[in-house]
Amino acid sequence: MQKITLLEASKLLLKNDNFHILTHRYPDGDTLGCAFALCYALRSKGKKANVIVNGNLPSKFSYLAESYDVQDFDCEYVVSVDVAAPSLLGDLQGEYADKIDLCLDHHGSNTMVAKNLFVDASCAAACEIIHVLIKAMGVKITRDIANALYTGISTDTGCFCYTNTTAQTHRIAAELIECDCEFNKINRINFETKSRAKLKMERMVYDTMEFYCGGKCAIIYTTIAMQNALGAGDDEMEGLASIPRQIEGVKMGITMREKEDGTYKVSVRTNDGINACEFCQRFGGGGHVAASGCSIRGDLQTVKYLLIKAAEEVL
Amino acid sequence: MQKITLLEASKLLLKNDNFHILTHRYPDGDTLGCAFALCYALRSKGKKANVIVNGNLPSKFSYLAESYDVQDFDCEYVVSVDVAAPSLLGDLQGEYADKIDLCLDHHGSNTMVAKNLFVDASCAAACEIIHVLIKAMGVKITRDIANALYTGISTDTGCFCYTNTTAQTHRIAAELIECDCEFNKINRINFETKSRAKLKMERMVYDTMEFYCGGKCAIIYTTIAMQNALGAGDDEMEGLASIPRQIEGVKMGITMREKEDGTYKVSVRTNDGINACEFCQRFGGGGHVAASGCSIRGDLQTVKYLLIKAAEEVL
Repeated sequence: MQKITLLEASKLLLKNDNFHILTHRYPDGDTLGCAFALCYALRSKGKKANVIVNGNLPSKFSYLAESYDVQDFDCEYVVSVDVAAPSLLGDLQGEYADKIDLCLDHHGSNTMVAKNLFVDASCAAACEIIHVLIKAMGVKITRDIANALYTGISTDTGCFCYTNTTAQTHRIAAELIECDCEFNKINRINFETKSRAKLKMERMVYDTMEFYCGGKCAIIYTTIAMQNALGAGDDEMEGLASIPRQIEGVKMGITMREKEDGTYKVSVRTNDGINACEFCQRFGGGGHVAASGCSIRGDLQTVKYLLIKAAEEVL
Repeated sequence: MQKITLLEASKLLLKNDNFHILTHRYPDGDTLGCAFALCYALRSKGKKANVIVNGNLPSKFSYLAESYDVQDFDCEYVVSVDVAAPSLLGDLQGEYADKIDLCLDHHGSNTMVAKNLFVDASCAAACEIIHVLIKAMGVKITRDIANALYTGISTDTGCFCYTNTTAQTHRIAAELIECDCEFNKINRINFETKSRAKLKMERMVYDTMEFYCGGKCAIIYTTIAMQNALGAGDDEMEGLASIPRQIEGVKMGITMREKEDGTYKVSVRTNDGINACEFCQRFGGGGHVAASGCSIRGDLQTVKYLLIKAAEEVL
């Protein structure tokens, strides 16, 4: 395993061919934006490349694949984008985990095993890395590429709202707008559109909200039964994690989501420098200072109790 | 009245002294951001200047005035910022309407009367104009100035989400971040903080939501009784109008708010080019294509019936 520079990464990409680009499981705007942008960029250089979407492409991101078709070739070079740990490869782990040639990521906690590794935790979105990389490859940023990169940057920063946003983030957004990116359409899809099912899910989730630690911790949950009652899919579940932290006075917002495998997927969002990553590492998870996650096995009350107890120690 | 360039405006400001800077009534982040940024800039050049806040400074914007104190002097030069029409001077109209030396604005519809006028409708926020102006004046952008300018730019663009955002908007944001602006604090105040009372009001409002015209029209309402039950003030009522348009498939979102005078204040928000202004003109109101308002006298069911009937004709 070798840490390389982005310039070296660009040379590796230009030297090789027949790429598989891997996203992380439960793919979000950043991992998908990276993968489609890089795929379009490689193809513009006459290479063959496919995006291996980890699970289904969420319907709201279908615009990313508008100019995409699956190509037929034998894979020779594997790139992972925005994947912080082997376990996040999910179902792709068996086929790809020990075959990754280049790992590109922005998670400081990255534990991937790859021939070549580039991690820059100063980037708000992995798409910022891909933007620099694509330019280093001498690729012209088309509207498709700009849309993909803007998707990752805007979704990972909550539309330039979160604390991870930097001057560089804004400068890249400016460049993408000048490359004709459809930021208005993308923002409406990602920030201003709610399905009725999502609205119902939010109302149900609001009813589960409880406050602890003198109002500094807010916790919400969803169960499989709730999801089934509403016919809610992954799209409806997305974004719920941002709800509890928004309440005035809350320093740590915790969202628990029951999964089919008997675990709860836990998302932790914090304010005022409370370390969400350290908190989640207690439960074998990780992520960023203000946004992290983990999985805990157990029933609703047990998992909730464990989380509240840990929150009381931190807050 | 004379149209001037920003460079000429900067020279006028440097040549004069003892400024009153006027904001528009019901002052928002942009007019306040302009006024405080310009005031701090003038003071840094050794001039005397006061911000004349049109009404009360909303408590959430109190951080803008953290380094501000009222100075004692006789006014010699009056500047209006982000004020599109004399009527928007509200209570300040009598004292200042015919005494404005310099009007700085970004509304294409500007109808102000002033000795010197600079309007640039390509700017998403009037604070973009003040940013260029302050730099032309040779002023160093302090954290206070950066905070004020960022406030105007972020609030007028919905945190870089609305269609008025440009590459310039992002580039200015990048510069302000490099001037140490506390964008994280500002965004949390303006976009990520909900009081528990507001949360409760939203839940109550969600319960009133009804769909008409095959789901293309969504309507919500608040009554005085609902407000009283929650002890909700103006802060809690703010932003409710954006709720119904967000639902997938909705082209016209209508919000009705019962007022003490026996009328309903109606806010209409539209997607896909449906003309909200024409719709509201039927009821003696008006506004922008995608966001308009009107007042209708009557009880809840009557007003709702009138609105739905009109919506059915339009959609």
